[in-house]
Amino acid sequence: MEHWLKEDERLDYLLAEDLRIIQSPSVFSFSLDAVLLSRFVNVPLNKGKIVDLCSGNGVIPLFLSARTKAEIIGVELQERLFDMAERSIKYNGLEKQIQMVHGDVKVVPSQLGIEKYDVVTCNPPYFLSHELSEKNVSEHYAIARHELYLTLEEAVESASKLLKQGGKAAFVHRPGRLLDIVTAMRAHRLEPKRIRFVYPKFGKEANTLLIEGIKDGKPDLKILPPLYVYNDNNEYTDEVSEILYGDKK
Amino acid sequence: MEHWLKEDERLDYLLAEDLRIIQSPSVFSFSLDAVLLSRFVNVPLNKGKIVDLCSGNGVIPLFLSARTKAEIIGVELQERLFDMAERSIKYNGLEKQIQMVHGDVKVVPSQLGIEKYDVVTCNPPYFLSHELSEKNVSEHYAIARHELYLTLEEAVESASKLLKQGGKAAFVHRPGRLLDIVTAMRAHRLEPKRIRFVYPKFGKEANTLLIEGIKDGKPDLKILPPLYVYNDNNEYTDEVSEILYGDKK
Repeated sequence: MEHWLKEDERLDYLLAEDLRIIQSPSVFSFSLDAVLLSRFVNVPLNKGKIVDLCSGNGVIPLFLSARTKAEIIGVELQERLFDMAERSIKYNGLEKQIQMVHGDVKVVPSQLGIEKYDVVTCNPPYFLSHELSEKNVSEHYAIARHELYLTLEEAVESASKLLKQGGKAAFVHRPGRLLDIVTAMRAHRLEPKRIRFVYPKFGKEANTLLIEGIKDGKPDLKILPPLYVYNDNNEYTDEVSEILYGDKK
Repeated sequence: MEHWLKEDERLDYLLAEDLRIIQSPSVFSFSLDAVLLSRFVNVPLNKGKIVDLCSGNGVIPLFLSARTKAEIIGVELQERLFDMAERSIKYNGLEKQIQMVHGDVKVVPSQLGIEKYDVVTCNPPYFLSHELSEKNVSEHYAIARHELYLTLEEAVESASKLLKQGGKAAFVHRPGRLLDIVTAMRAHRLEPKRIRFVYPKFGKEANTLLIEGIKDGKPDLKILPPLYVYNDNNEYTDEVSEILYGDKK
């Protein structure tokens, strides 16, 4: 198994024992937010084309492959992360369904094709570049987490360009950027239709926002039931446990 | 007691037996939404000036009088509702704290004074005028519930004009209008700071939105914990029961 891995990489489980993913504590590990987005987004069951922007180590394409037979393209700027994603896809034997593209989200629509896709997902960098602390941050994490090479508005614009009319774009972000994301979505023809707030615990403020919009959709926003991550014993709630580990726990 | 009442009006309890309010099933009865807004808004404890726009039968000023010693002005367009509010205020002996103004929210800032108030609350008409059904709706209810004489944007604009810099505006509305209300607030210098979604029950979509903004505030939006109205036995949750009836239940 070790010949699949480089340096301090690990081969971690996804969805109990169905899938494996290559991660590295010093380079990139997927977040719960990416997993929640993979479950939140509406995807076609059998056919269609999906693009995942800011794919990192490919966690969203891998998760989506358990939900749909549609073709999935992942786009990642960082070569090291792109390479981890490619190896994870091969390890799982998913090369026919998932294709990784090493490229810049800002220009990828002209490479992949304008208005050709049914669904776009994106877990973009959350933090403004001026929020970057110099301490203890590898370049890989800095680029994945901060708007150094891609702003929220640029991510939304690329998602919109890729989508057919009626196609769906789903994002995960921080609640503090809610107004920015809905403003950017409306500016780029993505009408917000479903929002789900994620709360770390009962009685706490939300710390994550899941949002889906439809290209050229009609205004009709729903606020879905809250999603709680931990119960009062600091264990994952049943809902999150089922999302992370499937039905097999 | 009957000399206080007209036609089919009733004298109902507010906050257990502390306050009474005049209502009429055919003209106007206050909603839970107004009560939730009265509790949600941040008010100064001892001094300051508060304006409640679209006051109806005065439910928000009456509730607020239990939370603050600040002066409260209620503004209501409909003479019949204005009159009910005035009688309720007298019945409760609150004439020194609460003053009702019979007027149009669109023009009331020039009457009451620009940038003179600390807090503005508003439970505006929720429905677009074209959503008005002709059936079974009294004119009083139609005006209170539909944007016949006041649009959401006009309500937000008046609230902003009344407020000092740093003053707070709080609104209650439907989640489907979230994007409209945040857009209108930002257009009129009210930066959204706190949102709380109200869910009829655990596991259901939100049906009410509470939002507070600060005039010329800095962007920093918090999504507060969800508020659930009913428990699984279709009784009010402890939180709502406490808001409606105080600690005395």
